[in-house]
Amino acid sequence: MKTQIAIVGAGPAGLLLGHLLRAEGLEVVIVERATADYVLGRIRAGVLERTTTDLMDRIGLGERMHRDGLPHGGFHLADGQRLIRIDIAALTGRQVMVYGQTELTRDLMDAAPERGLPIIYGARDVVLHDLASDAPYLTFVEDGAPRRIDAQFICGCDGFHGPSRAAIPPAAARTYEKIYPFGWLGILADVPPCDDELIYANHERGFALASMRSEKRSRYYIQVPLDQKIEDWPDDRLWDELAVRLGPEAGGRITRGPALEKSIAPLRSFVFEPMRHGRLLLAGDSAHIVPPTGAKGLNLAASDVHYLSEALTGYFRRADPDAIAGYSDRALARIWKAERFSWQLTRLMHRFPDNDAFDRRMQLADLDYIASSPAAQTTIAENYVGLPL
Amino acid sequence: MKTQIAIVGAGPAGLLLGHLLRAEGLEVVIVERATADYVLGRIRAGVLERTTTDLMDRIGLGERMHRDGLPHGGFHLADGQRLIRIDIAALTGRQVMVYGQTELTRDLMDAAPERGLPIIYGARDVVLHDLASDAPYLTFVEDGAPRRIDAQFICGCDGFHGPSRAAIPPAAARTYEKIYPFGWLGILADVPPCDDELIYANHERGFALASMRSEKRSRYYIQVPLDQKIEDWPDDRLWDELAVRLGPEAGGRITRGPALEKSIAPLRSFVFEPMRHGRLLLAGDSAHIVPPTGAKGLNLAASDVHYLSEALTGYFRRADPDAIAGYSDRALARIWKAERFSWQLTRLMHRFPDNDAFDRRMQLADLDYIASSPAAQTTIAENYVGLPL
Repeated sequence: MKTQIAIVGAGPAGLLLGHLLRAEGLEVVIVERATADYVLGRIRAGVLERTTTDLMDRIGLGERMHRDGLPHGGFHLADGQRLIRIDIAALTGRQVMVYGQTELTRDLMDAAPERGLPIIYGARDVVLHDLASDAPYLTFVEDGAPRRIDAQFICGCDGFHGPSRAAIPPAAARTYEKIYPFGWLGILADVPPCDDELIYANHERGFALASMRSEKRSRYYIQVPLDQKIEDWPDDRLWDELAVRLGPEAGGRITRGPALEKSIAPLRSFVFEPMRHGRLLLAGDSAHIVPPTGAKGLNLAASDVHYLSEALTGYFRRADPDAIAGYSDRALARIWKAERFSWQLTRLMHRFPDNDAFDRRMQLADLDYIASSPAAQTTIAENYVGLPL
Repeated sequence: MKTQIAIVGAGPAGLLLGHLLRAEGLEVVIVERATADYVLGRIRAGVLERTTTDLMDRIGLGERMHRDGLPHGGFHLADGQRLIRIDIAALTGRQVMVYGQTELTRDLMDAAPERGLPIIYGARDVVLHDLASDAPYLTFVEDGAPRRIDAQFICGCDGFHGPSRAAIPPAAARTYEKIYPFGWLGILADVPPCDDELIYANHERGFALASMRSEKRSRYYIQVPLDQKIEDWPDDRLWDELAVRLGPEAGGRITRGPALEKSIAPLRSFVFEPMRHGRLLLAGDSAHIVPPTGAKGLNLAASDVHYLSEALTGYFRRADPDAIAGYSDRALARIWKAERFSWQLTRLMHRFPDNDAFDRRMQLADLDYIASSPAAQTTIAENYVGLPL
């Protein structure tokens, strides 16, 4: 098979890129290792920046998101005692949208056939070839049979563990990484959320987050040491801990219910640069990871895809020779700022094993300063809604 | 001798407090271990917040400061390449005043006799007694003779190494401390500064600061490892290093000259709380230290002294029983915010031995974000000019 652009990965980054390129009339094929059901079953982030919702609107797929999503004009930071509201609507004139990544993926997936966006699911053993040449290609196995797709460009939207980044020789790139000494234990439950807005809590006992997927489905997290297991946290213990960490006000409003899903995720900051190697272009988690604090992961993938669709459109539609070359730097300028925000909010809100009493007081002084300073609140709000493209 | 208030230490904190209390008609005696010449010979900070200059004006001693001081409406952050201006005047409507601590001390010292503010210099072996009683007193040795001062309150303005804080039982207080893994090597020279404004530079090789005392006297600093000595840094080597670290633009404008003074100072964050023990009240460096980044040390002492003069005036003039009890919390609320700012600016601008490539990129991303965000610039500016009392 031949195409202009082959995309590896049918998560939100690959699907969004595919739709943006199809809207420009380009020829695209997406290859995905997993099944469609598996992709939809992954529980992920749920706070969309305006940048991301704008992209959905641009391809005409924002209808269900606007109907079912919850626009949020603010969120809270908590310090064990009080709630500090960050009024993002007043401070930035923008809102964010709470809409599960699963839902967004479904919208993009459902629209693929009618938009002429082929997705090959269950593609095993994907290998990228001849990336430094003008004629790169993919091979993989579909239903036991070997397949090959020749493309002018290959886009790696296959996440942190996918084959795309791994196909780039280490000597041609540089990686930056920070592993955090704790994980997030998450619980999903069909109960009303304890607050209309998200609450990021820095408690003496560790971080907690009160979030939601809808008015009837809550998503909570607590920081746990890396050596703990899900079995250490039966539902009751987890609900008890959340009630403490979220503080007297919000903690008292928690509605408990059985866990639909419970999992522990590690936290990592990671950047791989450059994001291009010959005819391979990386986007989203394949090139960078942020800790989930601040919900930048999916939104960064969306802004990458925005820049990448512009680069490919420039190449194919306007024969702009610099379009492809400029992609990595354009994307990385925004990525490093989002890495900074995610890292800083993570440091502000979590207990670190090596923190001493002075460090703890610095966290509380920081929260106290934020509570008193509209400028400090604005720095958080403008990063939370997404810095300009 | 009997007095209402005995002050230990005739540095800027003790002198300013003495004048403020005298202006309210209270009886004050200051006891200082060193000689007047020694006190004036100490080279210290030179950037005054509006809060501090307002206090000098309030006691009618701001004339020389306004004549000889340099009002600054901004300063620069540098990242090895560019200068990022923080326009504090535009962002906050306020300015800071560059005026050496030595000059401010001289103004306060010179006015002491005419204001009826006695200062006993050369007081050796100062000991504080009966602080938990209603009749505390000081003993010391003056010209070989034992002396005693009975006071209703004793104010400890005697710096980090003075006897006041040491007189408080450790069990009655808590300390918070951070020692930084580097020092500042400073040089004072009678040469015009390389810029009209201060430049705080984060260079690959370490921090540098271009500062001044006047239009003809420059003060520069570089970050050095703690194991280095002044002998390791002959003038030429130091000027060469400054030219590199300040970046191509400012570094090229340095005028070199022989060192009038050269010294290495360690960096420390330290807070002792509460700042009161019975009839002893601490102010300034006796209770807290900030690293010099951001020039908060003297200004924090001034705001302590403001709160403390209000507390003592409330006690003596309005017989307010809560005035003294509230002092520590009022002062500490502002101190913790200034500790936070000094710590954060120190972390942003210095190279730390344990920083990895990711940490370095976070510093550069932070500077890049600051360069692009008026809100981020405002957070720096509002702390730099001094948070509200």
